[in-house]
Amino acid sequence: MKRSAPRFAVPLVVLVSVAALTAHAMEALPRSPRVPANNPSTPAKLALGQQLFFDPRISLTGTVSCNSCHNVMAAGEDGRPVSLGVAGRKGGRSAPTVWNAAYLSVQFWDGRARSLEAQARGPMTNPVEMGMADHASVIRRIDAIPGYRRSFREAFGGGNPVTIDHVAMAIAAYERTLVTPNSPFDRYLAGDKTALSASAERGMRLAESVGCTACHNGPVFAGPSLPDGDGYYMMFPIKTTAAYEARYHLSEDPGRYTLTRVAADRNTWRVQQWRNVALTAPYFHNGSVPTLDEAVRVMARTQLGRDLSPAQVADLVAFLGSLTGEFPRQSMPRLPEMPGRSAID
Amino acid sequence: MKRSAPRFAVPLVVLVSVAALTAHAMEALPRSPRVPANNPSTPAKLALGQQLFFDPRISLTGTVSCNSCHNVMAAGEDGRPVSLGVAGRKGGRSAPTVWNAAYLSVQFWDGRARSLEAQARGPMTNPVEMGMADHASVIRRIDAIPGYRRSFREAFGGGNPVTIDHVAMAIAAYERTLVTPNSPFDRYLAGDKTALSASAERGMRLAESVGCTACHNGPVFAGPSLPDGDGYYMMFPIKTTAAYEARYHLSEDPGRYTLTRVAADRNTWRVQQWRNVALTAPYFHNGSVPTLDEAVRVMARTQLGRDLSPAQVADLVAFLGSLTGEFPRQSMPRLPEMPGRSAID
Repeated sequence: MKRSAPRFAVPLVVLVSVAALTAHAMEALPRSPRVPANNPSTPAKLALGQQLFFDPRISLTGTVSCNSCHNVMAAGEDGRPVSLGVAGRKGGRSAPTVWNAAYLSVQFWDGRARSLEAQARGPMTNPVEMGMADHASVIRRIDAIPGYRRSFREAFGGGNPVTIDHVAMAIAAYERTLVTPNSPFDRYLAGDKTALSASAERGMRLAESVGCTACHNGPVFAGPSLPDGDGYYMMFPIKTTAAYEARYHLSEDPGRYTLTRVAADRNTWRVQQWRNVALTAPYFHNGSVPTLDEAVRVMARTQLGRDLSPAQVADLVAFLGSLTGEFPRQSMPRLPEMPGRSAID
Repeated sequence: MKRSAPRFAVPLVVLVSVAALTAHAMEALPRSPRVPANNPSTPAKLALGQQLFFDPRISLTGTVSCNSCHNVMAAGEDGRPVSLGVAGRKGGRSAPTVWNAAYLSVQFWDGRARSLEAQARGPMTNPVEMGMADHASVIRRIDAIPGYRRSFREAFGGGNPVTIDHVAMAIAAYERTLVTPNSPFDRYLAGDKTALSASAERGMRLAESVGCTACHNGPVFAGPSLPDGDGYYMMFPIKTTAAYEARYHLSEDPGRYTLTRVAADRNTWRVQQWRNVALTAPYFHNGSVPTLDEAVRVMARTQLGRDLSPAQVADLVAFLGSLTGEFPRQSMPRLPEMPGRSAID
């Protein structure tokens, strides 16, 4: 396949999208995400989901939990360019934050999971993440722990409730509670005009006027709400520079193309959220850009063809900083016990 | 140095100790451990200590926190034979539990730290644990995080409170809160004679009559309370078997000798605690013994020269299980933020 074809095709698609979307106003973070009818939240399921999320025993070495790369005690990721999985193996893409992930159209950078439930199944058997041989091995580990057997019965009932579907449902239900309300921006939208600094206010207007919000709109600035399972994708970088490629290798990973093998998907990605973006450095799919101000410059240049002034960059950074919400205090889970021997084989 | 000398010398020391200690009765877990006068506990210090304990950013790769190997959400360790540190590097000895560690005479398997404060300084710069180049690098990371600078000022005051001494003091203060009261055994001692099963009660008497409690006595069964900094050491294994050596390699690590280079210290170790021991498999300094019942058999054979019956092993396991205490619910810390760039270099 020739690499040049999508270079011309995709920007047209993007332009059409931009035209269709400039009418979108900025949105406050909804109080809570939509809960799918087939996975209602219950206290028992949430408690179980939190235990599973924090339990490293569902990784091959017993050392990597969901929380290892999506740290709920921090901004929901690990502050690394790419994560380190079992035995120090390097991931291929930067861990996205789990906070507010429930508002994304689809999950993973390339959108390969249409729901949090589908996403939660992936890392356990990914050889560079949690490294389990297969889901059956995961279930054997969990099912050997008496406390888990009890918790799965409480959450799901039935005679044999420890299944990979229920593992994923419990984790997804827990993740839907990970929402950061009351950012300065949300307070501003709610009427508190003192919540944003003058610089953040200028940055907010600039984000619209220079075109950032053509794609970064909707409740978490990752695009509009779409029918269930539809992803909101854009090309990145649209037009890179030799200097950026040398420094940040932005085009190296073909993104969604890896999944679909459709030429038009080359270097396209699910649009990333802006909520708490000031706390999720380093940036982009490969985590190559260390600072938020440089990420702003790169996006303006590659996506909008603009070189921003230092004052404009500072204003946009101030605005993005105003999207840092409140992280609700959590109780620490207790992991179910395995008396007399370790659950790790 | 000839390896045979300490083989004869150390058992004599042990016999003397045994004679001196058989009068020790079993003790309930004290309500809280002694707090050293030079590191009083304050709410600000405890909160800071908990943050530091759970913060992976004080490791080279940003992936290993104290909690990674001493999991407070579980029984205070990682369920592995030996831990995996930065980049999947293997530790040399099994991670001991942090729960009730405050009651131990000295810290580390070989007692090389005389206090929790001294212990806390070690792992950060251990190349197979957290892997930081030096303590100055740890301090640079922490000092770059505005929320930590505030928390250190609140906890310690002064103009420049982010020091390695204060890091260790805050972590140690937090660890002194990690106490598991109200085990069935403690309730039994307090007068509730129904708290132990008949099997556990037989096991309790057996632990005294066969000689386990000659060494495993005191508040956490790791020996009597000693003057500050004095360690309570014993040889292990005293008399191993060819079969055990082939299977478990118990004598391979010379223990305290590595530290002191004194012949009499070969294969001596700080006596390990029994509190929550049912939840800290696999067992011994090298984590080579996978189950508690086998650990009981090995100890009886190597330390007491006895082959226990299956019923005796079951009773001792039941008694050891009665030493599982209540793990107090904790709130989850929030790690201080670093807006605009990652704290990991």
